[in-house]
Amino acid sequence: MSSNDAFVDLLTRAKQASRKLATATTATKNAALEDMARALEGAIPEIIAANELDLARGVENNIGDGLLDRLRLDEERILGLAAAVREIIALPDPVGQIVRGSTLPNGITIAQTRVPFGVVGAIYEARPNVTVDIAALALKSGNGAVLRGGSAAENSNRVLVRLIQESVRRSGIDGNAFQTIDPFGREGAGRLMRARGYVDVLIPRGSAGLISTVVNESTVPVIETGAGIVHVYVDASADFDMAHSIVVNAKTHRPSVCNSAETLLVHADQVGELLPSILAVLEQRGVVLYGDERARAAGAREAATDETWATEHLDLAMGVRVVDSLDEAIAHIDTYSTKHTESIVTSDFANAERFLAEVDSAVVMVNSSTRFTDGGEFGFGAEVGISTQKMHARGPMGLAELTSTKWLVRGTGQIR
Amino acid sequence: MSSNDAFVDLLTRAKQASRKLATATTATKNAALEDMARALEGAIPEIIAANELDLARGVENNIGDGLLDRLRLDEERILGLAAAVREIIALPDPVGQIVRGSTLPNGITIAQTRVPFGVVGAIYEARPNVTVDIAALALKSGNGAVLRGGSAAENSNRVLVRLIQESVRRSGIDGNAFQTIDPFGREGAGRLMRARGYVDVLIPRGSAGLISTVVNESTVPVIETGAGIVHVYVDASADFDMAHSIVVNAKTHRPSVCNSAETLLVHADQVGELLPSILAVLEQRGVVLYGDERARAAGAREAATDETWATEHLDLAMGVRVVDSLDEAIAHIDTYSTKHTESIVTSDFANAERFLAEVDSAVVMVNSSTRFTDGGEFGFGAEVGISTQKMHARGPMGLAELTSTKWLVRGTGQIR
Repeated sequence: MSSNDAFVDLLTRAKQASRKLATATTATKNAALEDMARALEGAIPEIIAANELDLARGVENNIGDGLLDRLRLDEERILGLAAAVREIIALPDPVGQIVRGSTLPNGITIAQTRVPFGVVGAIYEARPNVTVDIAALALKSGNGAVLRGGSAAENSNRVLVRLIQESVRRSGIDGNAFQTIDPFGREGAGRLMRARGYVDVLIPRGSAGLISTVVNESTVPVIETGAGIVHVYVDASADFDMAHSIVVNAKTHRPSVCNSAETLLVHADQVGELLPSILAVLEQRGVVLYGDERARAAGAREAATDETWATEHLDLAMGVRVVDSLDEAIAHIDTYSTKHTESIVTSDFANAERFLAEVDSAVVMVNSSTRFTDGGEFGFGAEVGISTQKMHARGPMGLAELTSTKWLVRGTGQIR
Repeated sequence: MSSNDAFVDLLTRAKQASRKLATATTATKNAALEDMARALEGAIPEIIAANELDLARGVENNIGDGLLDRLRLDEERILGLAAAVREIIALPDPVGQIVRGSTLPNGITIAQTRVPFGVVGAIYEARPNVTVDIAALALKSGNGAVLRGGSAAENSNRVLVRLIQESVRRSGIDGNAFQTIDPFGREGAGRLMRARGYVDVLIPRGSAGLISTVVNESTVPVIETGAGIVHVYVDASADFDMAHSIVVNAKTHRPSVCNSAETLLVHADQVGELLPSILAVLEQRGVVLYGDERARAAGAREAATDETWATEHLDLAMGVRVVDSLDEAIAHIDTYSTKHTESIVTSDFANAERFLAEVDSAVVMVNSSTRFTDGGEFGFGAEVGISTQKMHARGPMGLAELTSTKWLVRGTGQIR
């Protein structure tokens, strides 16, 4: 029971502190962010030392190269985190923005105004960068945050949360607005999902399993993120060099992240020359290729099964399927996509526009690497995650996606 | 099992039809809406006859005056529904609107574009007007709709859904996009809540019990609507006549709907003259008044309990509490409000602005009747409901609130 009380107490303090943070000035919030960027830069050895403990345990527990890559914080990545915090400083404060407004015929004015959610909950695993990204975006958008970073990154996260709280306090904001519930273990994650009334929105980031657990069990409204069975479709009219560079980049640039391609669809007209050439380069880069019959004839060594198309490898592995038409490519995507990102490589304007209109995913691309689906690349400074749902936010989520709105109505005694 | 198949079959047809509707032109959608308005006007006797069957059963089942009022469709209300449909014709089509867009430094263009959700589910009870409102808004925003209108209004809804489907078909749109699941009874409502993959968003409208069932049991994303424990706070500086007219209008204009006031908070400075005078008028209008000690001294006949403050009467009943400060009023609202609408009556600018900033509800008003929280009043033509949650939509939901967005990304071979 005392652990219960401590948990409710933590949530209560976060909620109360977030009420004050909601009306903090932009200058105060930016000062806290600048302090946070400096604190990260000043604590590089300490962060790396803590991270090495997590990495060592990850190796011991055999968590795999993809997860280890996500878990790792080296000097370059820490400097990248600090730089992302500074980009957030440079972005306009969403709080108080008027989304829509008008004067009604009876003289009443109505103004739909951006307000912070209140407290944002986040459940993620083995990604200590998320701690900084979400805290910084929450702070700028006037929200408190309750973070559950998971056991795999607990040493890294403990240091990062402490640095965040110290920066916030030094800037005159109540440090209670930012909390970690890692000390409460798995039970804490379960309780966070049922913290209706304390937490206004819950964002899971991690494996498909983690996300589906949160979606199914949470009574707090959830924004689903991240699962990325991402497709690149190489059309009959695709440019040879462009198809090569986009497919290779989408698959191999950073295979452990959600915007990496998992399935390559290629028009049958391209099986003679382009497909064998692309598959040879992918294999040279270490990609294990699972193909359908025609793709195996063109060089894929392994046989694809239905499971191949439904798998998010997050690793140097790729499914390859040959299709006879754009319609067949769109139908395949419709069946297997997690609605994150899909890209067509084509020189045919009509096919490009049809793909954009008919593919029902958060981000639909023409002649671009799927790796561009990213808050930083989109100019959001950092991202809370990539929403794969249709409600509230879709695609990379930045500051505006961490706000709600409130209608402010000003009258002079009007009645109906 | 055959009932199962019929249900899945219905959802599948709605989903497929909604895909086509998503790309229908504005002209086609407006023609269907105009046809729908005319069909309603042409079928007034038929609708009233069906509605009378529902009303008779409602009287038999003793459903109460508030519900009977919501259930009733007379000529004036049917003409009002047709007029609302025509207002929706006049509104801009949200589909295809660019919300944000930019050209990235690498030359890629990104455009966040409004798209329909797909299929909107609605579960409501004893409000046949909702059938028309939601179908019309869904149609204009390119969505299909699967409606569960409940047994109390089933005769009225059967006629209305048939009229809607006929109008849609006559305009060249697949009528399967609009479905009722009333023939599947209660089991159908349960299955609709679990129809992930078929239904993109589910909107409950009705009693607090119905809404909380849907919020807790649905695996489809939900937009919570409607529960309205709505407060009017009469400040120390409130104008005498304005306070009278706003309180009386907010409580008695249409007590059965969610934007009616349920609790009156009055500053202690007003107990001598204003409060007794307002309470006398309310009593004269038939309002049963539940007061705290000071409110009873000023004329409230019944004693308020903690339950009074937590009750949505939806009837001629009102809780009355005297507070010593604006802070106490805001604290009361913070404890008991369902975060729908609250209004302050005041002549003090600072108090007005503090109330607007600190009250955390979908609509916060100064010197206006709470009855203005309404899609029609806000200029949305009609409303899907009043969202009382913070995610996606807050307050009256019109066309834009029935859309999601999709990022369209156009490159020329860019890679990271």
